[in-house]
Amino acid sequence: MLTKSQYAEARKRAIALYETAGIILTKREKEAIEVADFGLGDLQKIGLEVLVYMNTSRVCAKELAMFPEQTCPEHFHPGKGGTPGKEETFRCRWGRVFLYVPGQRSAPRMGGLEAYAKHLTATHEIVLEPGEQYTLLPDTLHWFRAGTEGAVVSEFSTTSTDDADVFTDPRIGRFTKIAES
Amino acid sequence: MLTKSQYAEARKRAIALYETAGIILTKREKEAIEVADFGLGDLQKIGLEVLVYMNTSRVCAKELAMFPEQTCPEHFHPGKGGTPGKEETFRCRWGRVFLYVPGQRSAPRMGGLEAYAKHLTATHEIVLEPGEQYTLLPDTLHWFRAGTEGAVVSEFSTTSTDDADVFTDPRIGRFTKIAES
Repeated sequence: MLTKSQYAEARKRAIALYETAGIILTKREKEAIEVADFGLGDLQKIGLEVLVYMNTSRVCAKELAMFPEQTCPEHFHPGKGGTPGKEETFRCRWGRVFLYVPGQRSAPRMGGLEAYAKHLTATHEIVLEPGEQYTLLPDTLHWFRAGTEGAVVSEFSTTSTDDADVFTDPRIGRFTKIAES
Repeated sequence: MLTKSQYAEARKRAIALYETAGIILTKREKEAIEVADFGLGDLQKIGLEVLVYMNTSRVCAKELAMFPEQTCPEHFHPGKGGTPGKEETFRCRWGRVFLYVPGQRSAPRMGGLEAYAKHLTATHEIVLEPGEQYTLLPDTLHWFRAGTEGAVVSEFSTTSTDDADVFTDPRIGRFTKIAES
């Protein structure tokens, strides 16, 4: 859960990250940035700031902003009714991103994530510098963390159905609750 | 047809446009930029500089660079075998783009395009400034022209099958021929 002022402050920081990355947004888009704390209420560590450019029945494009060392927790996008799950490509635009998928063990950057480590099981690290990208096929478990400056990442994908995401950590809820006070 | 040096020069100009727009590309991507003259050999007027970020069986993302007042000629993306044609979203990142689709008549910017006007039939103008975007559904006839400074445009779409594009101008061939000399 986030307070209204925490939500507004996070959105403001996301807008600053997009500006630093040279990405131009409309006023309406800035007001539509979603701040996701995944229900854990520990946004600086576990969270993601998301702007959905478009999401049709076939294609989706988003711009993701991440605070320094912020982590998007482990999940995958399952298929449904014969349709394969979401396929997504992450393209780093600014900063640096450490993406983890199943495979050969690397040395995941877990500093500060001790409380969540049990649910960050994919250990093969892919480092994305600006201009670098990686395509995740459906059903691929993944989590990712920004470098020390934060990151801005473009996502190109099939239709996004966030409510279908399956997270490793059972405490997670995809949609942020905002406290009334 | 373009000579090798015309092709290289156009690629260099496209790279400069991407840099002006703050878009970071890898060395390999810079070398993969496609210069399309659509077989008309009049690149400054009719052409498009295309970088394909990724193109899978479901999703495609491209970055388009356009020289000042350069026009991508009118075409549509037909369906095939029960699959709907390509759906694409254009998002202006830098400069300005004038996109034309069927609909209420506007005043298309035809200056300098007299030789091609007969094959630019869609007359409803959509102006895209940086941060603005427009989604074209399959089978929608369209053409677009950069403003006086040129433009950089992100394209988010379903799979791209350029060889299936249907152009209004029968003289057009989608793939650029390069002169050996």
